[in-house]
Order: sequence, then structure tokens, then C-alpha cells
Amino acid sequence: MAESAPQTFTPSPFAMPLDQAMRTQRAIRRLKPDPVDDALILKCIELALRAPTGSNAQNWEFIVVKDRAVKARLGQLNRSAFNIYGPLGRWMMGRQGNAPMLRILDAVQWQADHFEEIPVVVVACLRQFIPPWPSIAASSMYGSIYPSVQNLLLAARATGLGAALITLPLWSKLLARWTLGLPWNVTPCAVIPMGWPIGKYGPTTRRPVGEVVSLDRFGNRAFL
Amino acid sequence: MAESAPQTFTPSPFAMPLDQAMRTQRAIRRLKPDPVDDALILKCIELALRAPTGSNAQNWEFIVVKDRAVKARLGQLNRSAFNIYGPLGRWMMGRQGNAPMLRILDAVQWQADHFEEIPVVVVACLRQFIPPWPSIAASSMYGSIYPSVQNLLLAARATGLGAALITLPLWSKLLARWTLGLPWNVTPCAVIPMGWPIGKYGPTTRRPVGEVVSLDRFGNRAFL
Repeated sequence: MAESAPQTFTPSPFAMPLDQAMRTQRAIRRLKPDPVDDALILKCIELALRAPTGSNAQNWEFIVVKDRAVKARLGQLNRSAFNIYGPLGRWMMGRQGNAPMLRILDAVQWQADHFEEIPVVVVACLRQFIPPWPSIAASSMYGSIYPSVQNLLLAARATGLGAALITLPLWSKLLARWTLGLPWNVTPCAVIPMGWPIGKYGPTTRRPVGEVVSLDRFGNRAFL
Repeated sequence: MAESAPQTFTPSPFAMPLDQAMRTQRAIRRLKPDPVDDALILKCIELALRAPTGSNAQNWEFIVVKDRAVKARLGQLNRSAFNIYGPLGRWMMGRQGNAPMLRILDAVQWQADHFEEIPVVVVACLRQFIPPWPSIAASSMYGSIYPSVQNLLLAARATGLGAALITLPLWSKLLARWTLGLPWNVTPCAVIPMGWPIGKYGPTTRRPVGEVVSLDRFGNRAFL
């Protein structure tokens, strides 16, 4: 290139180094009510579609929920499950003195209380009925949707959008299907509320890798 | 920083821009038998551990299989499933004239034929028994392992290692557990054969995002 040539360079909002995006991905549950550009959500979903699917079936379906009435119904499903799960979790974590988990439960409570105000709620579905048995079928099918959900979360993180993976609003597949108008052969798998974060992304803490890796046989902790 | 200060900069092997890694991630099944540095595999798994888990349980277990005898047993499990699935798939795809899928089946056949020679086979497990019912439990649990599997695949892609997500060797959880010495409460979910690629990574093709996104209710293709 000639040295005098003018250079125009528009960096992609998703060009964050892969390892930095992964190391600073955390569930962001407290979100501003400010609207999010549809085009940005669609770009995140477009990256989600890059993930692998079993037999390359590409059989995802994403429902982008912005209508307040639909969000309210999902929020009600979320609350009815959290009203059982929340106090139980709080009691158990309190007994264990698990302060980080109690902070997470505070954020989950915030999310339950403000569900309708979250600008965008994405529901990731598979265009497939998932049989409970054999377990390899279930594993293969969930293995065709959760990699794309992880891409969606990483894309959100790279562009600064808050997001978190939840499943509580889907405790009743029947009610979730009814809320979203899903036919029987489209299975809702995960819910990702998205919006501009009130909190911020940052490094996470994890167990040392040697503690969760075995060599050749379970329990052979060769990398500790 | 003083202008004269010497700068040393070691780029991370995982610093590829996020969107580039996602757009060029594909299943790499044909792998060289050359050994792969343990440290590199562990760094990929360390990034896998950055993915979210339900209730932040961090309850993954990864088995890194390098022992040829263990790989041979997994390979046998893989072949016994592929001997049924392969000809069936080939017959169906042949009828449909689906040439790309026939090429994928060729690669899956190569993988089945060379399983023992693959340098590293990672088995991603959950330290949890996954009940077949209710479906929200299964979804939440698979949602605690497949995001980490996707991180592993993206990390492999960034550093140039070939990898693919398969589940066929786990068609019998009982035999897979026996092969890897897994207790009943550790569930094998996915298998990721890894090694230096014979083929190469490159851009993938996908359906347009508007075809798989609905607004508010299923079937409202507002973004076509």
C-alpha cells in the first residue's frame, strides 16, 4: 500500500480478543430500560448462528421479545418459579455462609422484579421435539442450541451489551409455548434477557483447571 | 510510559478477534497424529471453564484421553454407532442429492476409521446425574456444559488446533462410564477429538438471520 494512501478503518464491535471476551464474560442481570438497536441484536444472533449444530441441521429458532405484554407473561413465569427457588436458595446459601451466591441471588431477584422493563428478551429454541430418552438424543439436541447461546453471550459481552443465560421462565414448556406461539415441534431451551448494563463486565474467578481435569480415567488428576 | 521504554509483547495464542474466530469455526475431523502439547490443551480447557454454569456451580469435569487403549475403546463405541448412523445418513443424503452433507459424512467416516490415532480426545462431563424429567432440569444441566464446550472449540480454532463436537461415542452412557471410570453422578455429555488439522479453518455458510428470528411471537418474520 502506498504510504500516502488514506486509510479508513471501521473496527467491528465484535473484534475483542477471544480470550479477553471469555475471561470477562459474566452474567449481567441488572439492565437499563434504554432501547437497544435491533441491528445490534441481529448481529449478535448472526454470530450465534455460526456455532455448530448436530448433523449441520442449523435448526435454531430465536424469538426476539420486545412487546411488553409478552415480556410480562414471561416475567410472570419467571417469578412463579423464582418464588419457590429463590427463598430455598437463599436459605441454603445463608446456612453455608455463601456470600457470593447470595449476591447472585440479589441480582436474580432484581431481574425477576424488573423483567418487563428489560428491553430485549431473546428465547433460543430448537426446531425439534426433544425426547426425554435416549439421553444421547437429548444431549445431541441441547448440543445444537447451547453452543449458539454461548456465541450470543460472548457477542453481547464483546459489544458491551449485558446478557445472562436463564431457564426459569421455561419451567413449564407448555405455558412458554403458549406465550410465544410455538408449535409442538419447536422447543424453547434458554432465555437471554439483554440490554445496556447497569453493572459492568470484569474478570471472573474459577477453580484451578487441574482440579477439574483427569488424564485417561476419571480421578487421575495428572495436571494438579 | 516513557517513550524510550523497551516494550516486550507476547501475543496470546487466543487473541484472535472474537467475530473472526466465530465466523471461521468449523468441525475439523481429519487430524494429524502428531502430539499436541499438554499445556495448550489445558489452556483451551481453562478458557472453557470461563463459560457460565447454572447457579454458578462450576460442576464440569473434563477427561483428557491420550492413552491409546482408552481411545480405542471410545473409537469402538463411536464405530458401533456410526455403523448404523453412517449408511442410513448416506442413503438419505444421497436421495436428497445433498453433496455438502455427503462430504461431512466422508469426514465423519475418516474420524471413525482413525479414532485411535487422534492425539487427544477430550470428554466433557457434568458432575451431576441428569434426570430425563422435568425437561427444564435437563435443559439447565446441558446449559451448564455446552457453553464451556463451545468455548473449548473456539479456543481451539483461535490457536489453530482442529476440533469437532461429537456425541456418537456416548450412545451408551453405561459403556462410556465404564470406559472412563466415571461414577454414576458424573455424566459424559460430549466428545471433542483434538489435534493439528489436516484440512483448514475457513468461513462457513449459514441461513440468513432473518429466516430464523421471529419478533414477539413465533413466525412473525419481522427481520426478513
